[in-house]
Amino acid sequence: MQRIAIDMDDVLADATGRFLDYLTTRTGVEVTKQQLWGRDWADVTDIHRSTIRSWVYEAGFFRDMAVLPDAQDVVQKLQERYEVFIVSAAMEFPLSLKEKLEWMAEHFPFVDWRYIVFCGHKYMIKADYLIDDHEKNLKPFEGTPILFSAPHNANLTGYTRVSTWREVEQLLLPNAVEIVRT
Amino acid sequence: MQRIAIDMDDVLADATGRFLDYLTTRTGVEVTKQQLWGRDWADVTDIHRSTIRSWVYEAGFFRDMAVLPDAQDVVQKLQERYEVFIVSAAMEFPLSLKEKLEWMAEHFPFVDWRYIVFCGHKYMIKADYLIDDHEKNLKPFEGTPILFSAPHNANLTGYTRVSTWREVEQLLLPNAVEIVRT
Repeated sequence: MQRIAIDMDDVLADATGRFLDYLTTRTGVEVTKQQLWGRDWADVTDIHRSTIRSWVYEAGFFRDMAVLPDAQDVVQKLQERYEVFIVSAAMEFPLSLKEKLEWMAEHFPFVDWRYIVFCGHKYMIKADYLIDDHEKNLKPFEGTPILFSAPHNANLTGYTRVSTWREVEQLLLPNAVEIVRT
Repeated sequence: MQRIAIDMDDVLADATGRFLDYLTTRTGVEVTKQQLWGRDWADVTDIHRSTIRSWVYEAGFFRDMAVLPDAQDVVQKLQERYEVFIVSAAMEFPLSLKEKLEWMAEHFPFVDWRYIVFCGHKYMIKADYLIDDHEKNLKPFEGTPILFSAPHNANLTGYTRVSTWREVEQLLLPNAVEIVRT
């Protein structure tokens, strides 16, 4: 059985959406994800990057993120054909560890805790696929990297790109799609 | 550079000692590590295993463990010749995550957070060596497993066994030992 490693922030969880929510509630500035797409924070708001970055260190930041559309359904389907590990670079944010684990238990209760990994580097994870939004994780990965679209990677080329979980499904579960089509 | 994955509980941290401390302070029963060696809890105390097990779910259990002798010195030396990852099956105990990270920062400040991994299964960690006290982790590991002695694995055979960090040093840094000898 092939193994898939799946990132959390901006892949399963709407981290960008959380930043945008905080931006509105904390500063009154309203920016849409579409406005941010392919741009830097500095292009869309005068709020300093360090201020925006500071929110991830606040308690609760990771706990109440929205699930990205169809992530639950497709991850559950992937589990039937692959060994699925959730691999998050959570160590950078100590407060996030418990919140991320609680978040997984709430939204992905079908993922056993033995298949959740919190780490820094990801290149020592042995898997056939890595679905991630950061080139720093995809580039040194020894299996097949799959880039999940996010505003910050809109201009990145050289990777198989997916923009939705339905695209992940089409890419990794092609037979399932065929069955739907017949 | 070869990669070593190192477990925390009963390898870097004196988890058994912590259980024995709790046993004394909570129940008044005094048991030494030597008495427990190769035996079950039931052989050395009437306190039920489930009671003992329950302590790991208490806040603080992991935070104040003692460091096993020479672990800091040898891990630091290993870092000069190997890429060292600390890999702990912490996901089972949500409260332990933050405590284990704080414990690492206090006692192993020379281990960057990018090299710390909290997981369940360990077989998807790609490394040349795994130093661990549990056969469940060593057996499916694809590199060279190294068994670190603990009371619960005293009777386990079939693995290269080390009983102290100085033995790890002799095994994995033989040249360093030679230099000392000349």
